[in-house]
Amino acid sequence: MSQLAHEIHEQPAAIQRLLDSEIDAADRVAQAIRSRQIQHVVIAARGSSDSAARYAQYLLGSVNRLPVGLATPSLFTLYDTPPRLDQAMVMGVSQSGQSPDVVAVVAEGRRQGALTLAITNDPDSPLASATEHRLLLHTGPEHSVAATKTYTSSLTALALLSVALSRDLDRQTELDQLPQAVATALHLDGPAQAAAVRWRFATHCVVLGRGYNYATASEVALKLKELAYIAAEPYSPADFLHGPVALVQRDLPALIIAPSGAALDNVRELARDLRDAGAELLVISDDAELLALGQMALDLPGQVPEWLSPVTAAVAGQLLALHLAQTRGLDPDQPRRLHKVTRTH
Amino acid sequence: MSQLAHEIHEQPAAIQRLLDSEIDAADRVAQAIRSRQIQHVVIAARGSSDSAARYAQYLLGSVNRLPVGLATPSLFTLYDTPPRLDQAMVMGVSQSGQSPDVVAVVAEGRRQGALTLAITNDPDSPLASATEHRLLLHTGPEHSVAATKTYTSSLTALALLSVALSRDLDRQTELDQLPQAVATALHLDGPAQAAAVRWRFATHCVVLGRGYNYATASEVALKLKELAYIAAEPYSPADFLHGPVALVQRDLPALIIAPSGAALDNVRELARDLRDAGAELLVISDDAELLALGQMALDLPGQVPEWLSPVTAAVAGQLLALHLAQTRGLDPDQPRRLHKVTRTH
Repeated sequence: MSQLAHEIHEQPAAIQRLLDSEIDAADRVAQAIRSRQIQHVVIAARGSSDSAARYAQYLLGSVNRLPVGLATPSLFTLYDTPPRLDQAMVMGVSQSGQSPDVVAVVAEGRRQGALTLAITNDPDSPLASATEHRLLLHTGPEHSVAATKTYTSSLTALALLSVALSRDLDRQTELDQLPQAVATALHLDGPAQAAAVRWRFATHCVVLGRGYNYATASEVALKLKELAYIAAEPYSPADFLHGPVALVQRDLPALIIAPSGAALDNVRELARDLRDAGAELLVISDDAELLALGQMALDLPGQVPEWLSPVTAAVAGQLLALHLAQTRGLDPDQPRRLHKVTRTH
Repeated sequence: MSQLAHEIHEQPAAIQRLLDSEIDAADRVAQAIRSRQIQHVVIAARGSSDSAARYAQYLLGSVNRLPVGLATPSLFTLYDTPPRLDQAMVMGVSQSGQSPDVVAVVAEGRRQGALTLAITNDPDSPLASATEHRLLLHTGPEHSVAATKTYTSSLTALALLSVALSRDLDRQTELDQLPQAVATALHLDGPAQAAAVRWRFATHCVVLGRGYNYATASEVALKLKELAYIAAEPYSPADFLHGPVALVQRDLPALIIAPSGAALDNVRELARDLRDAGAELLVISDDAELLALGQMALDLPGQVPEWLSPVTAAVAGQLLALHLAQTRGLDPDQPRRLHKVTRTH
């Protein structure tokens, strides 16, 4: 078994460990957000952590009413005068906590008096040292270059923070059931292998997801690039219709990610149009009608609320990317040109 | 001559018209931003206007120190409780001013008491009616489906606002010279045609730009999709290195957009690595060293300051996309599946 496969299968335990360890830390951050009357959130992140930041936009925006913007770190590293951040919470998300550009954003936020938070797997990293508050991932070492368990644990840390802010007991109960839902999603290993065979010769594709699962589209597209070298671009259906839809033609491979929830109808409508145009659909969903539109389909566990569905949907996408790498004779533990820690400025 | 080519060549006059018409309106918005002590900016936009919003992130962030976040409109149309926006300026950018999701964001901002601004070509549009302030583009009707003159005019409107906020006379002088710089960039028509021939059979590519010109990478990638049906994904070099660099192999087509400025060194370094790996480079720049790395190169007019270079660089990209469409026998005025006004929810 590859290290990647091993780490994908570790996820239920990793998430459970995080839930057991960081409730107090999440409460402290929530208390600081309330007492400092935070007006908006700025998140610095790269790679998979940037997909986690997109999840935060929907989760903190909708459940906790905090507007979340994604930092453009080069504003802090290339240009002379960074934006004013004193009324913001500035958050850095990075499993390694090493990338200098992400650290630069939170360090500048702290210098200006902003509330600062690190979400990282390494308590001794530069990122963890640069911030006032920390949420630690507790996944244990991640050896694979492609992030899997650190990604779903980053989502879980954000979910824990959201619950601490809302003090919503129903959501707490839903969150407690997440490790079991992820364990169920791991049963998609066989179907993911079958789907991967059919995409053996795909060179590029589009990945569609909306709302909470726009983050999943971003993350799964990244896995397809890193592991299977497929040029996969993520879109929300709304962005897709404003131009990129011109790409649609017979045989265009399209990965559709839409668990049940407020975003489902919209994605299903676009999936139907793509199918009518002769595109090749691979569907990740728990909705029977949408699943039936796909030439291939990965049937997600039901009963997962939309706000947590990016975790289970990401697991299905990880399995797909793993099997695509293997089907193509690529080593999922050694993607070309990549290293575990990437330092950008 | 196609309508698209005609509208590309209208840009110097369109930009001049905007500069002559909207100074007072820009001053009023700047005055409101100052007196309301705006803490951050949220922009709703789709398609080319979303690329303009990325320009605003760098321009307003670096020159005017305003943190700018891109709205996720589905937070306002799909989910129950939108984020709090009362301390923000909420801006909608849309040439038609018609898309209901963009209107929904600014309408919610206004309902909450935020300062609201529309940047649009249509003073009678729903977007223009929904906001307290307006900056109008004055481009005249844009008949082509693919936005060209409305894109560069949207950038110019943002530049006018930035100058009004900073009251920087040097920048005002630089902005006044923009129509002439765009006229010079239009001389790249011949070189763009030659470059397009070589990319006749490209099916997908990466587009790299950083800082101010990450917006250009986004916009030119969109033109390549809309007009030439090339699956072109835009990246900043930092994001590219955190995963997508695994796509790099011999013959990967890479469009490199890097005018002189703070972002140049970083992009040139990555371009050198791509060239060493056997990728096929098409370079848009005014830097001789970077231009020499490309199998094909479009030599931008020099003397354009970095903060305005996204306008001239976009013109070079428009010409490239136009000629790619024509080289492939496609009608640049009738991209498949697209209409001039796209209404998304």
